This record gives sequence, C-alpha cells and structure tokens, in this order.
Amino acid sequence: MSAPTIEDIRAAARRLAGVARRTPLLESDALNDAIGARLFVKAECLQRFGAFKIRGAYNRIAAYAPAERANGVLAFSSGNHAIATAAAAKMFAIPAVIVMPADAPAAKRERTMALGAEVILYDRVNEDREAIGGAIAAARGLALVKPFDDPFVIAGQGTAGLEAAEDLQALGARPDIAFLCASGGGLAAGMGIALKDRFPACALVAVEPHGHDDLVRSLASGVRERNPPGIRSICDALLVDQVGALPFAAFQSLGFGALAVSDAEAKAAMAAAFRELKIVVEPGGAVALAAALRADPALRGKTILVVASGGNVDRDVFAEALAG
Amino acid sequence: MSAPTIEDIRAAARRLAGVARRTPLLESDALNDAIGARLFVKAECLQRFGAFKIRGAYNRIAAYAPAERANGVLAFSSGNHAIATAAAAKMFAIPAVIVMPADAPAAKRERTMALGAEVILYDRVNEDREAIGGAIAAARGLALVKPFDDPFVIAGQGTAGLEAAEDLQALGARPDIAFLCASGGGLAAGMGIALKDRFPACALVAVEPHGHDDLVRSLASGVRERNPPGIRSICDALLVDQVGALPFAAFQSLGFGALAVSDAEAKAAMAAAFRELKIVVEPGGAVALAAALRADPALRGKTILVVASGGNVDRDVFAEALAG
Repeated sequence: MSAPTIEDIRAAARRLAGVARRTPLLESDALNDAIGARLFVKAECLQRFGAFKIRGAYNRIAAYAPAERANGVLAFSSGNHAIATAAAAKMFAIPAVIVMPADAPAAKRERTMALGAEVILYDRVNEDREAIGGAIAAARGLALVKPFDDPFVIAGQGTAGLEAAEDLQALGARPDIAFLCASGGGLAAGMGIALKDRFPACALVAVEPHGHDDLVRSLASGVRERNPPGIRSICDALLVDQVGALPFAAFQSLGFGALAVSDAEAKAAMAAAFRELKIVVEPGGAVALAAALRADPALRGKTILVVASGGNVDRDVFAEALAG
Repeated sequence: MSAPTIEDIRAAARRLAGVARRTPLLESDALNDAIGARLFVKAECLQRFGAFKIRGAYNRIAAYAPAERANGVLAFSSGNHAIATAAAAKMFAIPAVIVMPADAPAAKRERTMALGAEVILYDRVNEDREAIGGAIAAARGLALVKPFDDPFVIAGQGTAGLEAAEDLQALGARPDIAFLCASGGGLAAGMGIALKDRFPACALVAVEPHGHDDLVRSLASGVRERNPPGIRSICDALLVDQVGALPFAAFQSLGFGALAVSDAEAKAAMAAAFRELKIVVEPGGAVALAAALRADPALRGKTILVVASGGNVDRDVFAEALAG
C-alpha cells in the first residue's frame, strides 16, 4: 500500500460526482486586510454532513467490490468520520457499525445514530479502539473504513484539494502556502498531493492542536511519534494517537512542515469565521485558519490557502468560542 | 421608472463579475428529511460583506456616470445596505455618507465605519431618514444609492436569482416555490424576475416578520400599506415602513404571495442553519428559511428555493438564537 497519486484523486472525484458537494472557496476583505495577505478558505464545513469526511468514506466503500461490502462496514471515529461512514453506508444500503469514544460530542453521536448506524462506545483513554473494532469486524464480516490510513480514503479527501486548485487557477491565484488541518493526516496528505500537482512551488504546512503535536515531532525525528494518552483539547476531531503511516510517507515526500496552535487560537479562529466568513467551523476544523491568522510577517503579501475542515460543533462550544 | 427586465439583470451580472461572489446553493439531507421536500438555500450570507446588498449598491454606483458620482454617494440603511454602499464607494474611490438608525446593530455600524464611510445616526421612531438624507445629499451634491426603490438596485439584487436559476437548472431541479425575504422588496423583486424568466411555473412568496407585514396587507388591498411606527423585531434588516413602489409593482405583475413569520420562527431557522447548513444567518435573513421550515403539508415532495439573505449578526443575538 502506498499513498494515492493524482490519478487516484481524479478517479475519486469521478466517483464522488453527485455525492459530495463542490464546496466554495471563500475570501473576506476584512481578513485579508487584517493579515496583509490574500487568504482563501476552502469551506469543507459546508460539505454534506458537515465535514470533508464523506469524500473519503464514500470513495472507500465505492472502491470495495460489492461482495466485500455486502455484510456492511465498520469504522472507528471521534465523530465526523463516523457520520460520513454512516451516511455513505446508507447510500449503499448496507449496515454500518461505528466504534466511537464515549466523550465524543453529543451532536456527532446523535447524528451518526440518526443515519441508521449502530454505535459502540469505548473509553478513549483506557481502551484500544482498533482492538474493539477489529474483533467486531472479524466476527461479522464487515469491511473496514479506516479514518485515514487507506489510499482510497486519502484519495477521496484529496478531491477537496483538486477543487481548491481548480478554483484558485480559475481566479488567477497561485497559493504560496497552504495550511491544512491534520491529525491522522488523510485530508492534509490528499489535499497536499492535489495542490503540489497543480502548484509545485506551494509550501505545505500541517496544523495540529497543542498537546497533540506528534506530527511536528515526527517530521523532526523522521519516524512516527505518538501523542501521550489522555490529553484533552477542544479540538475533538484531531485527537488520534499518531499520524497514519501512509499520510506520514506523503508528508515526508511532499516536504510538509507542521505547527501546532492553542485551543485559544482555535476558538479565536472560530469567532473570526463567524464574524467575517459567516461559516460555522468546529474547533478542530479551525486550526488551519488559526495558523493563517497568526499573521506571520513572512506571509505578508502572500497568497494563502487554508481548509476549514468541518462544522459539527455543539452549540455551547460554539457560543463559548464567540464569547471569546 | 419601472422595474428592471431580465436583460437589466444580465447587464448587472456582467458589471458584478469579479466584484460580487457567486454564492453557493446549499442543501441538507437532514432538512430535506425533516420537511419531506427538497430544499435549496441560496446562501447570500456568504456574499462579500455578509449580505446580498453589495450586488445592488455596486450596480447602482457603476451605472451612474462618473460625473454624477464624483462628489460621492449617500445611502440610508439599517445596516447591510450601509455596509454595501460603503464598500462599493470604496471600490470607486469616492466618499460615502450613510444615514443609519441609532438602534442598528453595533456590528453593522462598526463595519460601515471601518469601510471609511461617514455615519450619521437618527432616531428610527421619531425622525424621517429620507428628509435627513435628502438634505445632506442636496447640500453636498451626493448621488443617492437607494436601498430598494431603484431599477439598478433591484437588477443588482436580481443577479442572486439568476445564479440560483442557473445552478438549479444545472442540477436538473425545477423549483415549485421560492420563499424570498422582503422588506423594501428589492431582493425579492429582483430574484422573482430572474426566477420567473427561467421557471414560469414557480410560485413566488415574499416573507416578512410579524408586525411588519405591510406586504401581506398591500397585496390584499392592492395599494401600498404602511407599517405602524415604533414596532421592534429581532429582524433588524426588515424594518422599513413600506415596500418600495417599484418592487410592489413587480410583486403584483409576477403574482407574488406573502406571509409573515414570528421572531421565534426566525430564531429557530437561524439555529437550523447553524446545525444543518453550517452557515451564520442573521434574523432578517432567516425568515424565508423559517417559512420553508413550517413544513406546510402542501409542500411535501416539492422543490423549494429559499434565500438566506445575510449573516451580519451580533454574537449575543446569535448565541441567543442557538440557545432556543
């Protein structure tokens, strides 16, 4: 298994036609003025089911042979991948079993169940979701829909990068740098592959939350580092133990950098997205925007692309971010 | 003066290319399921400066001869038209004077001033904004940018309808009914003209807030009725005294219906837009969505278009709507 190619991403885009939405590339005069750069936001929070995840989940299920997926699918996820897998399974009219951490946001758990999936909760700190999920999948003959470490999943997420690259080119814009939310790394790897194909000079930076900065350490050491267990962050979508093997290989070959932002920066980015872009972004979906809003003097006058990867946030968390 | 034609709207679209954003048509699986219909939302809250108003304001200023607009422009507005006129004037590098009610939302007043406009406040209940604005415009030789009763303004707003019609057609969808936010009526009239051109069988319904239902009464009586002064509503964007003469003529010739929704319904629509569409909609911008969410049994199985006309809302008002 290796990371997907641009051709794999194009094939995913053909499978996703009429399934995933082409999300807009948003721009705000006020944010551009504030940071002294031209900032484009790929608004994947406006994607069907509220996050980019439907791209990868649907592409993965579609690429299974009908016999492979006949008994249904299994996914483990803190939320958005759960919703996406449940929704994609429903489109194929097959069962979905989702293994979710017990502390996942209520909105995400309820949405997954409303889509007809069977939800199995586990303790994120003390239990091993891969062991739990693996046992169920083996017993019931379910096809696995991994959240990131699968070439079809990465290719699906990469279609967001393909669209952004096309839209930037249509606007006559050429990104100097792209900030991409990362945890398992499927979205950042897929988008990075698509962006580098169109814009070879574009710098790529994966953004993670403080405390879950395994990627910063992994890119420095050259091997995949782990996050310590039990860390809590407002960025519930970005709390996997370790970047995936395939995404990490892609990050290395594409020359990715990485940086981590604080919960306070993520919340400030959510408030800026509310105020200036009129979009609802969840904490983990706001870290790439948070990185751009640091307004690093090195970025003045540059063209910046960020992804706002999801908008599935409980109203109390959102209201708290707005209150600043 | 008469209402614009579809050709006037097409001319406006050409002027607005590269100025206004082509906003997306959003759809939510969950909302479709909830109302048993196919619902499309034209997300004008994602327009530049947070509302559809830049379309009309820019088209109006662009259509003035350079000599006519050389001294600058004047507008009176409760907020979104103020921001749009200030922004459009800035693009033409001419001064803007905005006459605003003293109780307009702080966010809108601050944004207008940040765009370089001179803001003059008046008492919405006891003073006559047209008299105040007219005196200043005459004294300084300013060109008027009316909020709705101008064919160039209506044509500009109508470009939102042109885009929605094109996008619906590209999706193979044919709207049975369109709910359009209305107060002065420029947006509803312009969008109605564009939609009827493409979809002659589409029913058109203007939606206003309870207490400001002059249009419901005007369409019944056949003459323009007034709203009583001093009414307060959460829908700050929809509080003009009376529908404009040109929009009203268009409503009559296009066979518009009208209905009014409560503040509670507008807030519930804001919460639904947060939860299911991940967009920020202000109270007045949410009334058309509120009408669709009533889930009138007569609309089951139908294709519905609504406009979410703006997203410039103070965070406290938004948080209150989410808290339900």
